[in-house]
Amino acid sequence: MDNLESYYQSRFAARTQRIQASTIREILKLTTQPGFISFAGGLPAADLFPIERIAEATQRILQAHGAQALQYSTTEGYLPLREWVAGRMPGATPEHVQIVSGSQQGLDLIGKVFIDPGSKVLVEAPTYLGALSAFNPYEPEYISVGMDEEGLQLDELEAALKAHHFKFMYVLPTFQNPSGRLMGLERRKAIVELARKYQTPILEDDAYAELYFSGKPLPTLYALDQELGGGNVVYLSTSSKTLAPGLRVAWVVGPKPVIQKIVYAKQGADLHTPTLNQMLVYELVRDGEWFQAQIGKIRHTYQTRRTWMLEALQKYMPEDIGWIVPEGGMFFWLTAPAQLDSLELLKQAVEEKMAFVPGQPFYADGSGKNTLRLSYSSASHEQIAEGIKRLGRAVHKMLGREPVV
Amino acid sequence: MDNLESYYQSRFAARTQRIQASTIREILKLTTQPGFISFAGGLPAADLFPIERIAEATQRILQAHGAQALQYSTTEGYLPLREWVAGRMPGATPEHVQIVSGSQQGLDLIGKVFIDPGSKVLVEAPTYLGALSAFNPYEPEYISVGMDEEGLQLDELEAALKAHHFKFMYVLPTFQNPSGRLMGLERRKAIVELARKYQTPILEDDAYAELYFSGKPLPTLYALDQELGGGNVVYLSTSSKTLAPGLRVAWVVGPKPVIQKIVYAKQGADLHTPTLNQMLVYELVRDGEWFQAQIGKIRHTYQTRRTWMLEALQKYMPEDIGWIVPEGGMFFWLTAPAQLDSLELLKQAVEEKMAFVPGQPFYADGSGKNTLRLSYSSASHEQIAEGIKRLGRAVHKMLGREPVV
Repeated sequence: MDNLESYYQSRFAARTQRIQASTIREILKLTTQPGFISFAGGLPAADLFPIERIAEATQRILQAHGAQALQYSTTEGYLPLREWVAGRMPGATPEHVQIVSGSQQGLDLIGKVFIDPGSKVLVEAPTYLGALSAFNPYEPEYISVGMDEEGLQLDELEAALKAHHFKFMYVLPTFQNPSGRLMGLERRKAIVELARKYQTPILEDDAYAELYFSGKPLPTLYALDQELGGGNVVYLSTSSKTLAPGLRVAWVVGPKPVIQKIVYAKQGADLHTPTLNQMLVYELVRDGEWFQAQIGKIRHTYQTRRTWMLEALQKYMPEDIGWIVPEGGMFFWLTAPAQLDSLELLKQAVEEKMAFVPGQPFYADGSGKNTLRLSYSSASHEQIAEGIKRLGRAVHKMLGREPVV
Repeated sequence: MDNLESYYQSRFAARTQRIQASTIREILKLTTQPGFISFAGGLPAADLFPIERIAEATQRILQAHGAQALQYSTTEGYLPLREWVAGRMPGATPEHVQIVSGSQQGLDLIGKVFIDPGSKVLVEAPTYLGALSAFNPYEPEYISVGMDEEGLQLDELEAALKAHHFKFMYVLPTFQNPSGRLMGLERRKAIVELARKYQTPILEDDAYAELYFSGKPLPTLYALDQELGGGNVVYLSTSSKTLAPGLRVAWVVGPKPVIQKIVYAKQGADLHTPTLNQMLVYELVRDGEWFQAQIGKIRHTYQTRRTWMLEALQKYMPEDIGWIVPEGGMFFWLTAPAQLDSLELLKQAVEEKMAFVPGQPFYADGSGKNTLRLSYSSASHEQIAEGIKRLGRAVHKMLGREPVV
């Protein structure tokens, strides 16, 4: 035991030994210094958390059902909340719903239930980094499929589905983290049909489902699959983006055979999601009028911040930096000329006291070195204007050009 | 997709396909009927939950730090709570502490970090069923070591340590769930020394640490290992048995190389334990005087209920049913003559409208058919007297004898 590092290193599982410290994580630790402007974290706007409402609801719950709220509860989750979730999903009953401790836990449990070492999983390029962190311990082999402005490219997708046997395909159709893309209706229909044709279940991650800035929300892949008979989509969403992420309450909706296995996996993983937190989320969402107004506030605020960031990008970025203007969600996704390495850019940006997340970790195939993610959800007008100005300086310096300002 | 069951069955991971529905779970579902007396669940007494204190503390936290309490937070956990935990463990700093979503999650993450398929893990016979549920998905091979009244038998333990290379040994020295055993000081010292001699890390599960009915708590294995240089014990405890299990706040304390890996594993598993819940637990435990009084109440109540159950067992059980009188914790562990199968007894008991947990699932080696667990923590005097009377009738019937009453 003289050298604890090597004592334990030789005792860790193979999956653990592959984990390496993240350079990006180390760099981003610097961003808590005063004067720093960070667009790195995907943090919902704390100024929109319904703090008073949560305080009132907690009192009501503890007064009326304190013993229940503080006791162990069933692994499946709080029944009224499961009923509420089921009520929003076509064809679903509470037996199709499992409450989880954040979407992240949903991803972990689905990985645990489906993935053997070497199992193939189809992912978008780019995809959500946290899903890769959740799946990696189960040692899948990823096949990445490219995207255009509307999401997964159909020809490439079909070729992959034809060539491989996948445990599932992981898709974020609505304001994808990181790219902010919204998959259109026709693309959604085509993907649901292809998945059924090639008998590949879809895992639909819909964390940003409510964050449309305008227009009518598109049907989920779950709903479209339901129209074709159902059973081929496992759906994941959360209260983190509409109420408060610190409560860690999310849900999986899926075919009963899948939910049954998730129940067992969750029982071994954490017994159940905190009872009080589940009751609290239900107490908030059950008042539909209030909940819609809360969502409305978030939409309006994020849209405003999105527009501020768009204006700043237009002002401070050189013309060969590209982006899709997000119509919802929390992120801008930038694509730079191929020679610009965004990890190097981050080092330069940190010198300017601003930060973002380099794009490469969002690609399971290791590409995307010239991409980066900016979050506007938690920033003020001033922070956005100044932060993008600093990023502009760093970009111009990296590209060997004179900055605009 | 016509047959969803087989469609998904062929897509599940190997670890999932091994999961079978539990007969016991199915039987215990019946116990929610009116008139049923169940000693099956290991439920802390809800009448002792500090509901008002929790309500007040929640208000204070939300008023003063609402945005923080509801926002994402670090994977490692809320620093003041980590400091409080570290302050109770000799030689520990907050860097040795990881907050987890219940002890159950600690077990899952340690399984994920250490266990490869076929890895050997040493367990007590019997051991905590939930640990087996947590470890099983990582496919270990268990080696069970027998116990006497004081815990693991030293000669058997040393023979196992000599014969196998273990990832770790899993030990519950204090009021073990299920057997209620308290490991004595000399046994503790000997086990810590043997583990160091054979370079086998100890995972110490100390969920019942505070529930001594009398006397001075014995030093933890963690503390004893620390006296010999430290680094060989990973320690797990929780707020579930002293405050409220529904909050799901527990902690792992261990050597830094282990904690670092657990941080990564937890990040993939659920990002972090709910911020509000961590702040709430800290807000309660920081008032040491109140917290000690709360623990005092629990000790006194459980001791009283333990004594009620002891009296009922003495009255209604035949002489060839044995037990250890627990000096703390929540459980009686009964051993019947070898011919009595406690799963069959459960079916008989359910006829009598009472329930317990059969002992076999607590044995990794499948033995223990003639054992069973009774929880007294949540039961009234009347329930205990009547419930044990019913159990007595079932036992006498199974053994083909005339009941006492």
